[in-house]
Amino acid sequence: MNLSLLTDFYELTMMQGYFFNCPRDRGVFEMFFRREPFQGGYTVFAGLGPFLETLEGLRFTGEEIDYLDSRGTFKKEFLDYLSGFRFRGDVFSVPEGTVVYPNEPLVRVSGILMEAQMVESMLLNFINFQSLIATKAARIVSIAGNGPVMEFGLRRAQGADGALSAARAAFIGGASSTSNTLAGKQYGIPVSGTMAHSWVMNFDSELEAFRKYAAMYPDRCVLLVDTFDTLKSGIPNAIAVFRELREKKPSLMAVRIDSGDLEYLSKKARAMLDDSGLREVKIFVSSDLDEWIMRQLIESGAPIEAWGVGTRLVTGWNDPALTGVYKIVATNRGESLDPRIKISNQAEKITNPGVKNIMRFYSDRNQALADLIYLEDEEGELEALIARRAPVRFNHPATDYSHFTLADYASARKLLAPVMKEGRAISAGPSLQEIQEYRRKEIEALDKTYRRLLNPHIYKISLSDRLKKLKTDMIRLIRDNY
Amino acid sequence: MNLSLLTDFYELTMMQGYFFNCPRDRGVFEMFFRREPFQGGYTVFAGLGPFLETLEGLRFTGEEIDYLDSRGTFKKEFLDYLSGFRFRGDVFSVPEGTVVYPNEPLVRVSGILMEAQMVESMLLNFINFQSLIATKAARIVSIAGNGPVMEFGLRRAQGADGALSAARAAFIGGASSTSNTLAGKQYGIPVSGTMAHSWVMNFDSELEAFRKYAAMYPDRCVLLVDTFDTLKSGIPNAIAVFRELREKKPSLMAVRIDSGDLEYLSKKARAMLDDSGLREVKIFVSSDLDEWIMRQLIESGAPIEAWGVGTRLVTGWNDPALTGVYKIVATNRGESLDPRIKISNQAEKITNPGVKNIMRFYSDRNQALADLIYLEDEEGELEALIARRAPVRFNHPATDYSHFTLADYASARKLLAPVMKEGRAISAGPSLQEIQEYRRKEIEALDKTYRRLLNPHIYKISLSDRLKKLKTDMIRLIRDNY
Repeated sequence: MNLSLLTDFYELTMMQGYFFNCPRDRGVFEMFFRREPFQGGYTVFAGLGPFLETLEGLRFTGEEIDYLDSRGTFKKEFLDYLSGFRFRGDVFSVPEGTVVYPNEPLVRVSGILMEAQMVESMLLNFINFQSLIATKAARIVSIAGNGPVMEFGLRRAQGADGALSAARAAFIGGASSTSNTLAGKQYGIPVSGTMAHSWVMNFDSELEAFRKYAAMYPDRCVLLVDTFDTLKSGIPNAIAVFRELREKKPSLMAVRIDSGDLEYLSKKARAMLDDSGLREVKIFVSSDLDEWIMRQLIESGAPIEAWGVGTRLVTGWNDPALTGVYKIVATNRGESLDPRIKISNQAEKITNPGVKNIMRFYSDRNQALADLIYLEDEEGELEALIARRAPVRFNHPATDYSHFTLADYASARKLLAPVMKEGRAISAGPSLQEIQEYRRKEIEALDKTYRRLLNPHIYKISLSDRLKKLKTDMIRLIRDNY
Repeated sequence: MNLSLLTDFYELTMMQGYFFNCPRDRGVFEMFFRREPFQGGYTVFAGLGPFLETLEGLRFTGEEIDYLDSRGTFKKEFLDYLSGFRFRGDVFSVPEGTVVYPNEPLVRVSGILMEAQMVESMLLNFINFQSLIATKAARIVSIAGNGPVMEFGLRRAQGADGALSAARAAFIGGASSTSNTLAGKQYGIPVSGTMAHSWVMNFDSELEAFRKYAAMYPDRCVLLVDTFDTLKSGIPNAIAVFRELREKKPSLMAVRIDSGDLEYLSKKARAMLDDSGLREVKIFVSSDLDEWIMRQLIESGAPIEAWGVGTRLVTGWNDPALTGVYKIVATNRGESLDPRIKISNQAEKITNPGVKNIMRFYSDRNQALADLIYLEDEEGELEALIARRAPVRFNHPATDYSHFTLADYASARKLLAPVMKEGRAISAGPSLQEIQEYRRKEIEALDKTYRRLLNPHIYKISLSDRLKKLKTDMIRLIRDNY
């Protein structure tokens, strides 16, 4: 499907406005979000790869132009321009899998104003959703310990791509597999899945259904045991079949419990399996799981070795949208690059002006200490300070009187880097496996106080001296006008 | 994109199992959900059209077969079968836009068991999400009264299709337009949209930005007034521009307020516009709206004439997934059609066995009174009763001792009808506009007590005598085995 029209209509009305008023103006936009999802302490950035791929190939064909023409809103010259449109701007971004925080610039798009404007809706759609789900997955995986988390969400995901993108993002967040076959093909994610209740119901007995399944899939045999009665029927029948099967030395024998009290049932099932000499049979569970339910099960010692997590992973459940926005931070007419700011009746909606980057500071044990948002044109200065490990001043993003000086750091790392130049992706980008591994290291670099599920330690995001001064001066200038 | 692999992997492992064990068995599955979303009193069924269209065209090409082959799980004979696969089963369904309730069969798929099994994940994905959003939209629209609801959710929707399907479903639920241009093209939904804050920020002053916009779009001019300060800057500048513009007799002049206290700002803005003689200028609002916030604004007399609703509409927000499931209700080997039931440790997960339909009974004022779920083979009998307006007995779906007799009804209507025969859609189906209008009438047929946002009157869904007896007997038979 051609996604060039996957854009809010107002992007197109504004583009036409720019086309006729200021077609050569340049603009710089930054994407950021305002609030940590799930009341947690971090967000995992995701969605960049598919966004860049789509952006690079974006074209309006005759079909799209005809549709726009039929709206009666657009002039011929503008439609002609769109026919030849391809995105030729530059994109900077933090890498996928990076741990990020509210109000940090995550993606920066610069180019001809009307081109950079147009990108807004699609960029937000891709990044908001995938970052949300990568974050949810990271939370769930952090609870699961060594037990693999299998993503099972297709049937209740928000549409076809709600499932497909979620599978990708969940894998970045640490899920080990997906049930979604198309996501397996599309993204190279391991797929998993065995049987539904209908399999069991379709044979004359549960025992027969299990036997037929084991005969078909003798090497990896996972039996769903709750179709009739988990302890009275499912487990005894599974035991009978596994006793026959174990002679074939299967690489995996497991039962899956999909309803009922998972602590009670898993403990009883474990005892029954052990008493039958089937210690190698694993217990998998599914059934409306999330990080909170899983934590209870683990704390109560439920003997669960793998988790099927669906709806509450792929929808975000208690927080179904990341609040990302895309705001203009500078415009450029001719030579000068002018910072722009959005003031608001709501203080938290005031933006940070100017073209920015993020410097993350680390301790000698490679723990992230704090992030400094700074203006790109002060980068040389900041890098010189860091080179000699000189103290750096961090200013609170909103209040005037709160700041601190970081002196005791071992290293620092710039987070945004170029990913697209004049409309062309700079490289093929990392593989999904590499992103998952990078994400794992990113979380490891966080002190455990930041990883608490609820009420986490708040990681410090501050402004450089010059950015702080620019913001304060701009607010004052605008406010003085009223 | 080929969606044949948009399926849980276990559908394919089960299919292969059926292929080698019982390739000629037939099965009947029904889709239903278990819990009313949003704690509300009704659900609007949606998603059928796109599902049928996708199902009809479903084919595994070489690319999909190669991928499956690479898994090492499937035998050649089965992959050969998939290469030639097309769905040849029958589908019955309630029409899109129908008001439906928990545990009612909404879609029925019958055919070769392995074909009918395969449909599960995709059907649930399409129907669960679109029904969720159509329901959310209907709730929001029911609050908005005559003020149009514009769907604005693309940027925070759950992926590309999370936006596209949501726009379609929101329109069914009563939204008047979408911001999503692709949804406009794809589904013929009116598109709307004017300007973002970036438009205002890109000019040297707000006044200049408004003037340029009015010059470009003089006939329908909606100005976003909260970039700097709604009352001190936005409204005065809008007044200046509208005074100039009104001579051109535009068909719409409006301001949009996107932040701050919407009651306070809309009332002040209304007064300022009225004092300037601009009574015809309308006030639109947006900013994290949902049915609850809108109800407060309306109850407080905020002079708002149109609503832009985004995130909380297209994600479902406080309930991001409908709990639809797809369960086998009968299997057929050779001649006999045997009902099937799923027992569970959780009573609410016990299914209603057999092939069923729903009869909805109406009063003489065309108000829906109650629904009776009945077995298809008792249809003649039931229709005969209804023809002479004889009393009909309604049995509680779970408890044995609760039933009532409905005598005072004026008419009755069967809800499920054939929509696909041997893999071919029976008709092109209604247009989206027709579905929207049908949905409006469906809600009108509900007594207002069922339409309350919270704590609604519970609409009665009951089982026929014969269905009740079948269910009770089957549970007893299975339970007696332990």
